[in-house]
Amino acid sequence: MIVDLQSKLLPVIDGADQAVNEAAWLGALALDLEVPVWLTEQYPEGLGDSDPRLLEALSNARRWSKVHFGAHDDPVLARVLAECGRRQIILCGAEAHICVLQTALGLLEAGYEVYWLTEAIASRRREETRLAMARVTSAGAVAVSADMVAYEWLERCDGDRFKRAHRNFLKARSARPLRF
Amino acid sequence: MIVDLQSKLLPVIDGADQAVNEAAWLGALALDLEVPVWLTEQYPEGLGDSDPRLLEALSNARRWSKVHFGAHDDPVLARVLAECGRRQIILCGAEAHICVLQTALGLLEAGYEVYWLTEAIASRRREETRLAMARVTSAGAVAVSADMVAYEWLERCDGDRFKRAHRNFLKARSARPLRF
Amino acid sequence: MIVDLQSKLLPVIDGADQAVNEAAWLGALALDLEVPVWLTEQYPEGLGDSDPRLLEALSNARRWSKVHFGAHDDPVLARVLAECGRRQIILCGAEAHICVLQTALGLLEAGYEVYWLTEAIASRRREETRLAMARVTSAGAVAVSADMVAYEWLERCDGDRFKRAHRNFLKARSARPLRF
Amino acid sequence: MIVDLQSKLLPVIDGADQAVNEAAWLGALALDLEVPVWLTEQYPEGLGDSDPRLLEALSNARRWSKVHFGAHDDPVLARVLAECGRRQIILCGAEAHICVLQTALGLLEAGYEVYWLTEAIASRRREETRLAMARVTSAGAVAVSADMVAYEWLERCDGDRFKRAHRNFLKARSARPLRF
Repeated sequence: MIVDLQSKLLPVIDGADQAVNEAAWLGALALDLEVPVWLTEQYPEGLGDSDPRLLEALSNARRWSKVHFGAHDDPVLARVLAECGRRQIILCGAEAHICVLQTALGLLEAGYEVYWLTEAIASRRREETRLAMARVTSAGAVAVSADMVAYEWLERCDGDRFKRAHRNFLKARSARPLRF
Repeated sequence: MIVDLQSKLLPVIDGADQAVNEAAWLGALALDLEVPVWLTEQYPEGLGDSDPRLLEALSNARRWSKVHFGAHDDPVLARVLAECGRRQIILCGAEAHICVLQTALGLLEAGYEVYWLTEAIASRRREETRLAMARVTSAGAVAVSADMVAYEWLERCDGDRFKRAHRNFLKARSARPLRF
Repeated sequence: MIVDLQSKLLPVIDGADQAVNEAAWLGALALDLEVPVWLTEQYPEGLGDSDPRLLEALSNARRWSKVHFGAHDDPVLARVLAECGRRQIILCGAEAHICVLQTALGLLEAGYEVYWLTEAIASRRREETRLAMARVTSAGAVAVSADMVAYEWLERCDGDRFKRAHRNFLKARSARPLRF
Repeated sequence: MIVDLQSKLLPVIDGADQAVNEAAWLGALALDLEVPVWLTEQYPEGLGDSDPRLLEALSNARRWSKVHFGAHDDPVLARVLAECGRRQIILCGAEAHICVLQTALGLLEAGYEVYWLTEAIASRRREETRLAMARVTSAGAVAVSADMVAYEWLERCDGDRFKRAHRNFLKARSARPLRF
């Protein structure tokens, strides 16, 4: 679930470009492996659409408009999520300490396993990103990197599934400089 | 609860100005949202009154004079707090590792949920502030920022309540440089 | 258990030399104290054999070739490990956030006590090494240094066992610069 | 309990002077408040006596010679400690990751509350001091500073007990630069 990486919010976020790029990267791998991808947008009339890089890379993702900071506080979204049957949710987006945090806490309270995608979560202030991560991991979420998730999805290095993912995704990430 | 931000203690505290300003900021928002605010003062005959910026911004706050380092060790304060029915307490003040820490531990032991307002808690030595935060979070407290608290109080971005808080409070904090 | 310190993987790892040297050091002490040592190798046809320094220092170690990133996901390895009766496993190797991490999580889930040998575990990016360590310790593993392990094996400073270990192993490590 | 701050070990320890001075400071306050103080010495025939500053400041402390790295693994010491009836043990000394760590783990396993006196615990390498602290706090110990302990012993700021402690101890520590 990619939270609120919207065009009018991103310019004030410390680490916005990396968050968008890495969210798009893991989102595209997810779709390739048939893992559903959701995009949320906070009050898009004011904060704009999701970043064009996301909309282009993830044209099959489901988009949700919301007014609650915590996405799971939206009763329709919460119901549809429960119906889709997944119990593990990978979160990324902005701002770490507001919408991503409240979404994480809502999901944890509802019994989901929450994975905090460290390099694709950002706030205006990096210290508030860190504080949000400390808080959600204390509350039971697991901080991960996109590489961790990818290799856990793939499980083993033999077979065509791994080879395709390696060629199309994993190799490119290896060479990218990333800030955590 | 704003602990012991008093005029004769503040000059030796590393981060005193920020602690006073951010405590005043969140305290004023709290009063605006009808959340009660308490100020404690350790031995005010010796350490002076609370900082004038707090007394001015929070003229509706309740003030307590105390001799125990841990505010909750004062039996009258503890009884009145229990009677007021709130179970979630946001703590800030000085010194992090003495009065704020002992207050936090006392509240946790009494069954309260304790929130540690990171940017408004300080000691003479920054390392002792950090150590106190590590200790209380291990003991069950939750480290938060003022922005986290504000957006959790507000819950959603539609409606006049949010608009007023955004105009009067949230916008100003966004632009402020803060050290965590 | 020394995970995947292989010749074609090591050149891209940040901290590879230290990981190999310290793994060899603790592995040799382990063999001297009759603690079994295992080496795993991920797809050795592609990633090469374990580093020659390991193969030389640990010629009595058992070697396993594998295709699962998590060594414990290999059913034969898992069965033999269970049969050998040890419940405490010390892990080191590369990459921290892929094969070492997945091995650690698999072992924890199977009920083993997992010890994360901090100075001998590495990834391409140091930040992913740290994130992996935070994740496994949250999941119940214990982060240790080789010195900790050695002195816990030895228990006391009288007797020939300690004197031999001190002369042959402990003294040399004291003087070595190490990065954690 | 002050672990192994001995004359022939201290020269190789990073932070030895501060560890000795702060251990002596809190030890002297403890004796003043009738809290018992113990000194252990690892193989004093080889590593020498406790530092002279400790022996002078803490002439009423009990001294123990030992061969186990973990003091609580010494059966006589363990029995006498149990008999003295205290359940809270404050630990300091060297090396953090060997004797202090093993003592802490032994005490925790035996059901004691263990307090890790951060600024008075040291190893050759600072990183191993940090790793030891992370390990014991994960295992249930509480990291504290000497100031925390002192103000928790004193509880309140009225009365002669506090005034004497403030004049003789607390004031001097305020002004000292400390590294944590």
